[in-house]
Amino acid sequence: LARTKATIQQTRRSNERLVLRTIYDDGPISRADVARATGLTRTTVSDLVETLLAEGLVVEAGTGPSTGGKAPILLRVPPDARHLVGVDVDRDRLSGAIVDLHGEVKHRESRTLEGRDGAGALEDLDALVAGLTAAAERPLVGIGIGTPGLVDTADGMVRWAVGLDWHDVPLGPRVSDLTGLPTIVVNDSQAAAMAEWTFEQRSGSSDMVVVKVGEGIGAGIIIGGRLYTGEESGAGEIGHTRVVDEGLPCRCGSQGCLETVSSVRAVVDRAQTLAGAGIATASRSARVSYASLLAEYRVGDPLARDVVLASAEPLGRVLGAMLGTLGISDVVLIGPMTAFGDDWLGRVTREARRSALPILAQRSHIHLGRSGDEAVEIGAAAMLMTSELGLALAV
Amino acid sequence: LARTKATIQQTRRSNERLVLRTIYDDGPISRADVARATGLTRTTVSDLVETLLAEGLVVEAGTGPSTGGKAPILLRVPPDARHLVGVDVDRDRLSGAIVDLHGEVKHRESRTLEGRDGAGALEDLDALVAGLTAAAERPLVGIGIGTPGLVDTADGMVRWAVGLDWHDVPLGPRVSDLTGLPTIVVNDSQAAAMAEWTFEQRSGSSDMVVVKVGEGIGAGIIIGGRLYTGEESGAGEIGHTRVVDEGLPCRCGSQGCLETVSSVRAVVDRAQTLAGAGIATASRSARVSYASLLAEYRVGDPLARDVVLASAEPLGRVLGAMLGTLGISDVVLIGPMTAFGDDWLGRVTREARRSALPILAQRSHIHLGRSGDEAVEIGAAAMLMTSELGLALAV
Repeated sequence: LARTKATIQQTRRSNERLVLRTIYDDGPISRADVARATGLTRTTVSDLVETLLAEGLVVEAGTGPSTGGKAPILLRVPPDARHLVGVDVDRDRLSGAIVDLHGEVKHRESRTLEGRDGAGALEDLDALVAGLTAAAERPLVGIGIGTPGLVDTADGMVRWAVGLDWHDVPLGPRVSDLTGLPTIVVNDSQAAAMAEWTFEQRSGSSDMVVVKVGEGIGAGIIIGGRLYTGEESGAGEIGHTRVVDEGLPCRCGSQGCLETVSSVRAVVDRAQTLAGAGIATASRSARVSYASLLAEYRVGDPLARDVVLASAEPLGRVLGAMLGTLGISDVVLIGPMTAFGDDWLGRVTREARRSALPILAQRSHIHLGRSGDEAVEIGAAAMLMTSELGLALAV
Repeated sequence: LARTKATIQQTRRSNERLVLRTIYDDGPISRADVARATGLTRTTVSDLVETLLAEGLVVEAGTGPSTGGKAPILLRVPPDARHLVGVDVDRDRLSGAIVDLHGEVKHRESRTLEGRDGAGALEDLDALVAGLTAAAERPLVGIGIGTPGLVDTADGMVRWAVGLDWHDVPLGPRVSDLTGLPTIVVNDSQAAAMAEWTFEQRSGSSDMVVVKVGEGIGAGIIIGGRLYTGEESGAGEIGHTRVVDEGLPCRCGSQGCLETVSSVRAVVDRAQTLAGAGIATASRSARVSYASLLAEYRVGDPLARDVVLASAEPLGRVLGAMLGTLGISDVVLIGPMTAFGDDWLGRVTREARRSALPILAQRSHIHLGRSGDEAVEIGAAAMLMTSELGLALAV
C-alpha cells in the first residue's frame, strides 16, 4: 500500500511538472490545449492547474478566442512567479545574481576575494549567498553555483578547484544547510555554456563549444543540444593543457599551463613584469590591474597590446586542437578577456585556424558570446530551474 | 492504400529486425521467449521466424527445457549465416577482411599502395574489393570501408583524406556500383573505436577514446557507449594538431602537424635522415622501413630507440590535452606504432600525464588495445551490420 501511495505521488509530481513545462513553453494556453499537448485528461489537467495556481507558479491571463462555446481562460507562468539565485565563483571575485524564470537579472552583488582561497573563500561565499537570499523579493527556487574545476554535481562536491585551493569541499550541502534551499553545484564554464546556448540556439547548430577566458580558462561543450559534462564534469578542462615547455609554474602543480599565459591573471602579471623591467612609461601606473591594462590597451598602448595579443596565441592553438578533437565548428568566447575585443579575437582565430586541419579550420566559426557578464550566474540558475522545476530556460 | 501497404511493410521489416536482434543477442531462445522479450504476439513471431529461417539468418538449434508441455525448439543466428567485408584504407596499404557475424576474421587480403594516391589508390581499392567478394564463401551483407579523413557517411562521400589526396570522392556509390552490394563508408579511427569498444566494453566504463597511430593519427570517441562522430565525422581528427612551430610541411597544407612527427612515416623518415647523415652503423641497411626499424628497435639499437621514443612525446602531449577536453580517462592505443610496445607506451603516458590537470592525469588509464591489426576492418563491418541488419556486434 505504501508503495502504491508513493507511486501515485510520484506520478502526480511528474504530471505536475509536465503541465508546468507545457504552460511555461507554450503559454498563454488554455486547459484544453494543455490536455491535448500532454495527453493527460482534462480532469487531471484542471486538478493540477488548481495546485499550480495555489502555488502561484501559474496565473490566469485573460481569455483566448472562442471556438464555439465559452471563450477559454488562458494560463501562463509569470517570470516573477519564482526567482533563482545564480553564483559565479571566479578566482578573484564572487558574483551573484537574482534572476527570474526567463533568465533576466533582477539584482546583482559581488565581492572581491583579493587572494583569499580555501576556507576564507568559502566564508566569503556564505556571506554573498546570505546577502542574495536576504535581498530576494520573490520566493526562491534555490541556489545554483558555478565554480571552476572538477565537480560532482550529484552530491554537490567540488573535487578540485585549482585557483581556490578547494579539495573535496561539500559546497552544495554547506550552502543548502546555510539557506535551507535546494542548491546545485556545477562547473562554471559548463553553466556559461548552458546560458550561451539558450541565447544562441536559434543559430540552427546543435553543437557548440563555449570557452570562458577569465582568471581560469575552461570550456563547456554542447552536443546535440545537450550539455556534455564528461566524467566528474571534467570535459572542457582545457586551462591546464601544457602550452609552454619549461614554462611558469601553475597552481595546479604542473607548469606552462594555458592559464599561466592566456588568463586575465597571466596578462596582468606579464604586463606588471614588463612595466617593472623599466619599460614603463610615465603614463603607466606602477600597479597593473585588469582595468588599467584594458584602459591602456584601448588607447593603443604598445606594451598593453603586445602583452594581450601575445596571450591570444597559445589560446588559439589549444582551440585549434579542440576543433579537431571535438569535430565542432561553432566556438563562442566569453569572459573578461573578451573585453579586449576584435583584435584579440582575430589573433585567437588566426592561431586556431593555423593549428587545425585546413578543412576544419575553414568551416570553423569563432565568435564572441552574447550572454554577457552574467553567463555563469544565469547558466547555474537555469540548471537549478531544470533540476527543481523541470523547466528548460527560454528567453 | 499504397501508403498503408508501405506502412505495413515498414512495420514488418522493423519487427523482423527486432526478432533477429533478439535471437542474435539472446539465442538460443524459444519463439515464446522471443515473444515475451519483444512484446510481439506469438503468431507474429512465428511468422517472422519462418521468414528468417527461409533466409538462412536463423536456424533451429535443439530443444530447451520443457516447462510442462512439449519441449520448445530453440533458435539462434549462426555466425556464418552471413559474412561481411571490412576494408582498412591506410595511407600505404589497403587491407581487407571477410568477417563473420561475431566479428571473427575468416579471410584476409592486402595490397601495398607504394605511394599511389588519388585515382590510382581508388583502382587498387576496386581490385581489393573485387578479390574479397570473389573469395567469399557465404552470402555477403555488404562492404564496410574505413578510411582516414572526413567522411559523410550518409551519402558515402569522402570529403577529404589528406594522405590519399582524395577530395569529395563518392567512394560508397563507386564500390556499391562495382559490387552490387550495400556499402558504408566511415572514418577509420571511428571504426576501430567501435571494434575496440566491443572487445573492451566489459571493463565497466561507458566512455572511451581509441587512438589509432599508423600512417595517419586519429581518434574514435565513445561517449555513453555510443560512437560520437562530430560534424562530418570530424571528431577525433587529432593528426593535424600543430605540435611543432616552424615544423616540417604536412600534406594537409599546414606544417608541424602531429602526423609529421609521431606517425609511422615520420619515424621511418627521421631514422632514414639520421642514418643518411653518417650515423649509420654497418648493421643498418641503407633503406629504412617500418619492419627494419622495428627489428632494430627490438634488439636495442640506440638510434632506433631514440627516434621512436622521441616520436612518442608530441603524441603524449596531444593526448594530455584530449584528456582535459573530453573528460574521458580511458584511452586505448592501437595501430602499427603500438608494436613498439611498453617503452613507447610509457613515454606517451608520461608526456600525456605531464600535459593534463594532475587530477585528470592521475585517474587516466592509457593502455594498448586488444582488437589487433584488424580493428578497422572489424569495426567497419560491425557498422555495416548495424545499418543493414540492425545488429550490434557481440563477441
